[in-house]
Amino acid sequence: MVKTRIIPPAQGAHAYPLLIKSLLLSGVRYHPEQEIVYADRLRYDYRTLNQRIHRLANLLTASGVGPGDTVALLDWDSHRSLECFFAVPMIGAVLHTVNVRLSPAQIAYTMSHAEDHLVLVHDDFLPMLAGIQDELPTVRGYIRLTDGELPPSRLPLLGEYETLLAGADCHYDFPEFDENSVATLFYTTGTTGDPKGVYFSHRQLVLHTLNELTLAAHTGQAPLRSDDVYMPITPMFHVHAWGFPYAATMLGVKQVYPGRYEPDKLVRLYRDEGVTFSHCVPTILQMILDCKEARHTSMQGWKMLLGGSALPLGLATQAHRQGILIQAGYGMSETCPLLCVVHLTGEELALPMDDQLPLRIRTGTPIPLVDLRILDEQGQEVAHDGVTMGEIVVRAPWLAQGYLKEPEKGAELWQGGWLHTGDMASITSGGTVEIKDRIKDVIKTGGEWISSLALENLISAHPEVHAVAVIGVPDEQWGERPLALVVGKEGVLLEPEAIKAHLQRFVDSGRINRWAIPRQIRIVQEIPKTSVGKVNKKLIREHEQQAVSRN
Amino acid sequence: MVKTRIIPPAQGAHAYPLLIKSLLLSGVRYHPEQEIVYADRLRYDYRTLNQRIHRLANLLTASGVGPGDTVALLDWDSHRSLECFFAVPMIGAVLHTVNVRLSPAQIAYTMSHAEDHLVLVHDDFLPMLAGIQDELPTVRGYIRLTDGELPPSRLPLLGEYETLLAGADCHYDFPEFDENSVATLFYTTGTTGDPKGVYFSHRQLVLHTLNELTLAAHTGQAPLRSDDVYMPITPMFHVHAWGFPYAATMLGVKQVYPGRYEPDKLVRLYRDEGVTFSHCVPTILQMILDCKEARHTSMQGWKMLLGGSALPLGLATQAHRQGILIQAGYGMSETCPLLCVVHLTGEELALPMDDQLPLRIRTGTPIPLVDLRILDEQGQEVAHDGVTMGEIVVRAPWLAQGYLKEPEKGAELWQGGWLHTGDMASITSGGTVEIKDRIKDVIKTGGEWISSLALENLISAHPEVHAVAVIGVPDEQWGERPLALVVGKEGVLLEPEAIKAHLQRFVDSGRINRWAIPRQIRIVQEIPKTSVGKVNKKLIREHEQQAVSRN
Repeated sequence: MVKTRIIPPAQGAHAYPLLIKSLLLSGVRYHPEQEIVYADRLRYDYRTLNQRIHRLANLLTASGVGPGDTVALLDWDSHRSLECFFAVPMIGAVLHTVNVRLSPAQIAYTMSHAEDHLVLVHDDFLPMLAGIQDELPTVRGYIRLTDGELPPSRLPLLGEYETLLAGADCHYDFPEFDENSVATLFYTTGTTGDPKGVYFSHRQLVLHTLNELTLAAHTGQAPLRSDDVYMPITPMFHVHAWGFPYAATMLGVKQVYPGRYEPDKLVRLYRDEGVTFSHCVPTILQMILDCKEARHTSMQGWKMLLGGSALPLGLATQAHRQGILIQAGYGMSETCPLLCVVHLTGEELALPMDDQLPLRIRTGTPIPLVDLRILDEQGQEVAHDGVTMGEIVVRAPWLAQGYLKEPEKGAELWQGGWLHTGDMASITSGGTVEIKDRIKDVIKTGGEWISSLALENLISAHPEVHAVAVIGVPDEQWGERPLALVVGKEGVLLEPEAIKAHLQRFVDSGRINRWAIPRQIRIVQEIPKTSVGKVNKKLIREHEQQAVSRN
Repeated sequence: MVKTRIIPPAQGAHAYPLLIKSLLLSGVRYHPEQEIVYADRLRYDYRTLNQRIHRLANLLTASGVGPGDTVALLDWDSHRSLECFFAVPMIGAVLHTVNVRLSPAQIAYTMSHAEDHLVLVHDDFLPMLAGIQDELPTVRGYIRLTDGELPPSRLPLLGEYETLLAGADCHYDFPEFDENSVATLFYTTGTTGDPKGVYFSHRQLVLHTLNELTLAAHTGQAPLRSDDVYMPITPMFHVHAWGFPYAATMLGVKQVYPGRYEPDKLVRLYRDEGVTFSHCVPTILQMILDCKEARHTSMQGWKMLLGGSALPLGLATQAHRQGILIQAGYGMSETCPLLCVVHLTGEELALPMDDQLPLRIRTGTPIPLVDLRILDEQGQEVAHDGVTMGEIVVRAPWLAQGYLKEPEKGAELWQGGWLHTGDMASITSGGTVEIKDRIKDVIKTGGEWISSLALENLISAHPEVHAVAVIGVPDEQWGERPLALVVGKEGVLLEPEAIKAHLQRFVDSGRINRWAIPRQIRIVQEIPKTSVGKVNKKLIREHEQQAVSRN
């Protein structure tokens, strides 16, 4: 062990643990009258936000929640979620943001696994919760969150949020405690087995937030700044809406919470509230651009950070034509999530936007404090040539240190002190990372690695293709060969041979090898998706396996 | 103790201590070819900076420096200092940046008190150091830093920096260790007793740097951003040049190190290197504006953060006329140093600059994570009315936890978990802090507190006054009464009665009380300053006391 010099603090000195309560100090100082907006129902200022957080802390305490206990939240994106983001961890409890898109059985599993004590639940989910309440033995009470519907429920409700809040005292003396205390918890669905509980500490969330804000120091990029109006379009139950509600509160910017995501409503809120910064996954961006309201709305001045999956150039171009300034980022549930954000140099920023777009959709450059390496199968760093593929491994101060109550899975995630992302990528000499595939989706054929993602991109470039998914299937001669499921555009009768001919041109130009052309191309009506909208390759593989065993 | 939930990390997980080496990751990724410039002598890129830091680490190790040891640096602002800012703490050692403006006796005191092991010393200080080397029993070796002069020296030199560096290996495997390890050490002169050793840990410096960068998220202000060219004009031996070399390196911006400060050279470097961001104290700003080069140089686009002492409006106006965008900040050696930076609202930013200037010279708004309160004599928070005075006390993650080897002085600095700044200030309802005086300079007269600073400002508004200092002197009737030392402008024959008449108008308008008019106004040639250019009120008080006892 390295013996450095450590000096104990003077008598009376304050060590200042990194706690979420410290993120609340600056916003109200910078802009006490700034607004928090909940869709079309409520708006209040930062002074009120602070006061409501104090009230909520008292309400939680009165409801029997103490330090170390877990509070479940089932809600659409709202001011209430924002209040919980602060109040729950600030009293030393753990906020479990429940993924309301999971099946009732999965929700019952996560809430029971998390040992939730108190449940804050929106009216929309009361019937579902009533159906699973017998599977939630640890829950001691339910508080309803309403948008004015108040349907009857079989649940033993403690009362309604706003009413209870109004009755709570508006001063709470928030304690100090170990910064490594768990603050938040949510479950990743993944594609195998039960959902896994991912948790983050106060320290991790504070450091993630500070780093997210340092992105604003990069001129010409599209980060969150103090004159922005922020609206999340990645659910708050999914990795704390990428941490932006914390960053926004720290800056004191106007925040708009849209409730349930409906594309027309999102566009209307953008327009009416003057939204300038959002983040979302490509699927949602597509829905926004295609919705009715979008037809007569210029989206000039809307900065959007894209993540979750690769952003196709066609979609980026469509967004740009509509006025949106896009920038891609990269991360995952286990990484809090930010790891990389696209960084453009001064010369790149001077390019016409059509030339910038291919650069803006890359995976990105690691953000400050992120130590990122790309390792080959022998665990050696690959050449920084922008071509050689390897697995992304990372170190950063905000990475999940394991999965709740599943030490083996945690030890799988972490190997030799590096978090293994399972993403295959290359890196340029300039430090730009480009994801090629998920490690389990890479197709190993004829001694070569083919990126299923790259193949999907080539196929989707065919003008009559609407969607595509490529997986590897066993092949006696080549080890694996690609199989493509293709959905044609509406009204188009697509033929597999047309796709093969389309790909042959890339073989002729040397861009792909001959064996990259799928032997099987299947024209289908739909491609299975996961609950978070990603292509469900696991399910496709299972179907294929069953089909093979049936034959 | 609050029992929160703390989960041990999974096997193989990496805890990521906040170490200075992590600040070095991002700059070279963002801008590998960006320049580091040393005055007119040397320029190299970020890749080279990284390599040189590795070489320096090997050189230090070969010179017998290990973790926990202390390395003294006596240099003007240079690339070498920047390299030491990283390499010394990164091997687990402590960097003692010696204040070369102190007297040889004081330097001997600090170097002996710090127990320096290795000394890196610029040629300019070789004679001084040779004179005190017998008082430095802990020093095992000296390395000379030269700008090409190489004068002979009686010191037992290990060699010359550049030559030794060139011979050192360019790879060093930097260890991980406790983030609370001491990274840097320097001495505050204060006005009473021996200099005190102030030290900061890796964790503190990383957190200070991250917070400094979050200031860039505030649009319309004057922070450090990625397209800036940075040049310090606050010495690197003084609170790490306010931490900006770390922040600049993290962003990958061009950095210009000016060597010894000469106003004409600074202006020339600004012009030739395209400097856009600097920080300095008002005295230095005045010297820059008054120098020869300034006469034919427009300083458009030069952002300057001012601190150290109150910025007079006249000076701010002069800087603005010359093209400089000024913004004031507040901190002290013990606070790493940033506590407050002026924050302008959107409406304030829309004002004409003449109206913005009085706002830009205020003490400022506490930056994120800074918990700042203003307490009255009973330890209660004063009203946020912008008028009531009290002492500023603070908590933040980067405050000195004590003084080296002086626990009693540390316990005096910290009382009840709050660092007591000794600064008297008011705070507005909008969170803007305005310093009125040092607690020991406040004049208590007739049951009222008079700010010596406020009185100085009023007197300096007289068109024939060049400089002024006000102290309190004992008075039988009033407890204390103010005494003013006034320097007239060149060629002006100033009369005390003119100053009294000038002040009488403020009495008539109700701005000050009758007893605020100094009974004694002394016209002098010069006002004594401390080594860092502040008015030395302690010395003035001593002279007064001696004068009284002689009478």
